[in-house]
Amino acid sequence: MSRAPFEYRTVDLTDEEYAADQAVYGGLTTALRRLGEISLLTTVGHDVVADATRQIEEITARLEAEVIPTPNFGVVVTKSRHVRGYGNAVVGMRNPVAPPLTIVQDLVKGGASAEFFLNALYEGPPGKVHGGVLALVLDQIFGEAAAAGGTPGMTGTLTLRYRKPTALGACSASAWVASTAGIKTIVKGELRDADGEVTVEAEGLFILPRWAREQIAESGETPPQYE
Amino acid sequence: MSRAPFEYRTVDLTDEEYAADQAVYGGLTTALRRLGEISLLTTVGHDVVADATRQIEEITARLEAEVIPTPNFGVVVTKSRHVRGYGNAVVGMRNPVAPPLTIVQDLVKGGASAEFFLNALYEGPPGKVHGGVLALVLDQIFGEAAAAGGTPGMTGTLTLRYRKPTALGACSASAWVASTAGIKTIVKGELRDADGEVTVEAEGLFILPRWAREQIAESGETPPQYE
Repeated sequence: MSRAPFEYRTVDLTDEEYAADQAVYGGLTTALRRLGEISLLTTVGHDVVADATRQIEEITARLEAEVIPTPNFGVVVTKSRHVRGYGNAVVGMRNPVAPPLTIVQDLVKGGASAEFFLNALYEGPPGKVHGGVLALVLDQIFGEAAAAGGTPGMTGTLTLRYRKPTALGACSASAWVASTAGIKTIVKGELRDADGEVTVEAEGLFILPRWAREQIAESGETPPQYE
Repeated sequence: MSRAPFEYRTVDLTDEEYAADQAVYGGLTTALRRLGEISLLTTVGHDVVADATRQIEEITARLEAEVIPTPNFGVVVTKSRHVRGYGNAVVGMRNPVAPPLTIVQDLVKGGASAEFFLNALYEGPPGKVHGGVLALVLDQIFGEAAAAGGTPGMTGTLTLRYRKPTALGACSASAWVASTAGIKTIVKGELRDADGEVTVEAEGLFILPRWAREQIAESGETPPQYE
């Protein structure tokens, strides 16, 4: 039997209990996202910056007193066997790097979509979103589209066609299952700027890995649902 | 003549003066990256978190007193006509979202490479790097490889093949110009984990847009060098 390349960390909490606990930490993350953006834009004097830096180091020291002792940082399984990804780099409520996206899954048609705002932290060319950031958000939305279509999997290939630069600001993206064949699912999708113009088209192949199929066959259970 | 989709912000400083100025702000960013990571891992009490959140909001207010008044946030052209991207989402010294990567260009062979560390902030599956984060860093390295080969351009298409999950931690990536034909450059590359195993293979098509070619033809000058 193939070995799973990772294990989920389990917590002895219901979905509701875990969400309530994480929401407190989520407030810290929201404040940090705003500070991150302002830290990039500020032109205040060097003394003010040095003072802020010292204060930030002090806050870090206090938060560092107790930390998660595992290499599986932000993904857990709750009592109800739901996967909660509050550390995820795109959607994580507790991850200051994540914009974060709120992705809406369409379980009927098999798809996923999101409306989001990309600020100065996501810049590549002047005033434009970094092309790689668009790949980052599309990869996450595509994975959730595959799962919504009933055929979850890991990204096998992802192809992005950049039609024009995307202005920083409001964006939206949608993805849908185009076809499935056994363990393989093809997802297609697109990203639009604030004017509704398509700026990126993409296609992805998602594959349910052998270890996951063997886990399902052995336990008779579907894997924990990442939702 | 086609209009450039963006303009560079110019500063009346030499490369050296600008780098020295930004280094002061860069210290703030380094402290913020560390706080971001710890904020995701901390399990300290809710009162400590609430206190830290208030302090962070106060710091933000002080830094917000003076900010850049343009939508072209992190990219500038110095006196010597060099582009400096300290706000870039992948390599920006002043961007807390950026890991950041230090990319080394090979101007002789036409390529680029980087060694870097991806911590818990870049997680997708438990203990593994988010597939989209790998696309993000590869897109930046590929663009710099194309430029190093003498044929700079914007990403036209990018295809990623994920061979296996990439563990969080030390990673490396390299890219090289595989072929050029007029305004089109094909770049190939790969990403390796801490064990040196290739986890992602990628191929990109980079195109010098019409507005850039017209700018070059009109001014007789090459565009500012993004280095």
